[in-house]
Amino acid sequence: MPGDDRVSQLQAAMAENDVDAVVLRLAENVVLVTGWYVQIPGLGLVVVPREGAASLLVPDYEADEAAGVWTGDVRTFPAIRNDGPPTGGAIQALLEGLAAEHGVRGGVVGFEGSFETIAPASLAGEPNAVGLPTQALLRETFAAERLTDVTETLESMRAIKSERDLDRLRTVNEVALIGLEAFKERAVPGKSEVEIMAAVEAAVCARGHGHRGARVVRAYATVYSGPDLAAGWQYFRSRTRVVERGDVVMLELGTVADGYWSDHTRTVVAGQAGAAQREAYGAMRAASSAAFAAAVPGATGGEVDRAARETCTAAGFTQFPHHTGHGVGFRYHESRPQLVPGGTDVLAAGMVVVSEPGIYAPELHGGFRHEDDAVVTADGAVPLVTTDYGLDAGEGA
Amino acid sequence: MPGDDRVSQLQAAMAENDVDAVVLRLAENVVLVTGWYVQIPGLGLVVVPREGAASLLVPDYEADEAAGVWTGDVRTFPAIRNDGPPTGGAIQALLEGLAAEHGVRGGVVGFEGSFETIAPASLAGEPNAVGLPTQALLRETFAAERLTDVTETLESMRAIKSERDLDRLRTVNEVALIGLEAFKERAVPGKSEVEIMAAVEAAVCARGHGHRGARVVRAYATVYSGPDLAAGWQYFRSRTRVVERGDVVMLELGTVADGYWSDHTRTVVAGQAGAAQREAYGAMRAASSAAFAAAVPGATGGEVDRAARETCTAAGFTQFPHHTGHGVGFRYHESRPQLVPGGTDVLAAGMVVVSEPGIYAPELHGGFRHEDDAVVTADGAVPLVTTDYGLDAGEGA
Repeated sequence: MPGDDRVSQLQAAMAENDVDAVVLRLAENVVLVTGWYVQIPGLGLVVVPREGAASLLVPDYEADEAAGVWTGDVRTFPAIRNDGPPTGGAIQALLEGLAAEHGVRGGVVGFEGSFETIAPASLAGEPNAVGLPTQALLRETFAAERLTDVTETLESMRAIKSERDLDRLRTVNEVALIGLEAFKERAVPGKSEVEIMAAVEAAVCARGHGHRGARVVRAYATVYSGPDLAAGWQYFRSRTRVVERGDVVMLELGTVADGYWSDHTRTVVAGQAGAAQREAYGAMRAASSAAFAAAVPGATGGEVDRAARETCTAAGFTQFPHHTGHGVGFRYHESRPQLVPGGTDVLAAGMVVVSEPGIYAPELHGGFRHEDDAVVTADGAVPLVTTDYGLDAGEGA
Repeated sequence: MPGDDRVSQLQAAMAENDVDAVVLRLAENVVLVTGWYVQIPGLGLVVVPREGAASLLVPDYEADEAAGVWTGDVRTFPAIRNDGPPTGGAIQALLEGLAAEHGVRGGVVGFEGSFETIAPASLAGEPNAVGLPTQALLRETFAAERLTDVTETLESMRAIKSERDLDRLRTVNEVALIGLEAFKERAVPGKSEVEIMAAVEAAVCARGHGHRGARVVRAYATVYSGPDLAAGWQYFRSRTRVVERGDVVMLELGTVADGYWSDHTRTVVAGQAGAAQREAYGAMRAASSAAFAAAVPGATGGEVDRAARETCTAAGFTQFPHHTGHGVGFRYHESRPQLVPGGTDVLAAGMVVVSEPGIYAPELHGGFRHEDDAVVTADGAVPLVTTDYGLDAGEGA
């Protein structure tokens, strides 16, 4: 599996593109290169010179923990205290020092210029972005000839997961199972959508931390229910609506463990599903399996998408009006591969993708979608974990 | 109170700075100008021409809800479907149309260039940022002479809250109280930090939605406990550590309701506090009151900070090594005013600030910090809500 040394991989791309240093400060790219999940957004940076060792810059009080994850060079700065040198100045001095140390002063510096969708760091309420201030900081500390956007390099690197990545993605997928099971238990008549959402997120948080050593876990759930689901799959917000007996209830769940993300959907009926609903559910599950079966190295996103849609059509159901799937891992939704009609992204071994076909119709009193995460292999995409608990909620897993 | 018409306020600044149009797509600035809390990050934009009406751009299925919040012009585009025109092209066409409509084609376009700290939109797991792609979009759709960073204008506008803002900030502060009370009940021996964190977040989510009409509510809690707190106030992460009888337990809580944020801290003792702990707690509370009393229009952030520190010192405690407070409202932490040693930001009526002095010492078996949100008035900063439930946890509010 490629990608086990992300620094060498990035340096090869830098050599090819005449980039002298790359500085990363988005949590998802710090995870990509070092495995370290930044705590305070923006206060975790990676400096990769064209040759030589990469450095991880973290607040001084995080040094020990960071060294337990990243065995490379760690530099520290003071943070969130005001009884010592200011944080900004200390980071500036570290960058200047590294520019000199690696002889890349005056060179071309790569930065995260086109990340407009961001995976939150550990402190998730206030993510960081890379805008003009970081660009000015890099220009100044490296006395840069120019800055260059390395988004494309990073996106193509991260699309293929390493063995380490897959191990951590299995962890977050296992953590997500806690939420999927909690959903099945709670999606019952009398509970509101927001109560079910809260219970799912709380279960993942309370029981996910510590699972296989996970340090930082968070879940983002959306629950939607009732006949509105036939169109309401677009809304992605939970309401105070109380679930009634027989309602279709859908969970959309993003989960993160130490910077690795999973993406799941489950649908249940709060009570007993009817015959037509079971038929639609079966067709949807078959479409999902067809997508995974088609997800082999060399296939395009469009081919995978078509496999799912044709299965729906063959079963007599209308095609769903949204994508079949997408990449996942360093973010809740990755930019590639896109499993969409006509999609031209070419799949490769080690990509992790979701498939999430849905069937929605007023006569089904809602809609049905399941979503799971799987790694692309020569035998098709293999789910990272499995849970298949049927369609009727509140009756035990 | 100033700021009740944010569009006019922004247009006055635009006239002064020769900016022909401003385009906003960060959730916090869309809230600032229109009150609408963007659902899918990036898929909510505001276009403000130098003269004339501002437009809010949202996905078509959100039009009705958006119109209930923002009474101005709403334009729509299709989103997350692939059975119609693509979203990107539709947004592009809307921007081109508005540029022509307002006669600002070829002009100077303002953008959010220096926001490197971001308030998440409603779908919080994947925030958006403004990077090179949005800049290219604006350059192209407006055939812009140049782009200009309007961050400074936005930051100075948002520092002063309008009556509408204050009303909504009272709502989110009331919602946060649910979490503070849940913390008091759950911070007891035998519970882990992550279990307490999960219970606080779940309480806010399950019971906060719908409070005074709140559509979208989320909480970000961190719980830390035990003797490590003397230094551990820096960590801001919850662990699987189980609270023991007599432990100090601290909650840091960010809460958002429809795009308005609050920031709170509470500390309790899991059992009965000792005499020295009660004394430190009293000094900390007095320092917080002193900060609020000093927070009058015309005072500097440094003066407010000094009032808090001098109160600690007078009570015989070491000064805390972090800031006394900061602005809050459109984000968990706003960039101004900063209540810090030597701080030069000048307070004004209508600013909303937190005070969060802390006292930390090994001999106290941890540390004590409370944090509340208050609006600056001629009589000092007045808390938006109050809850004062003492120091001993698990004994009812």
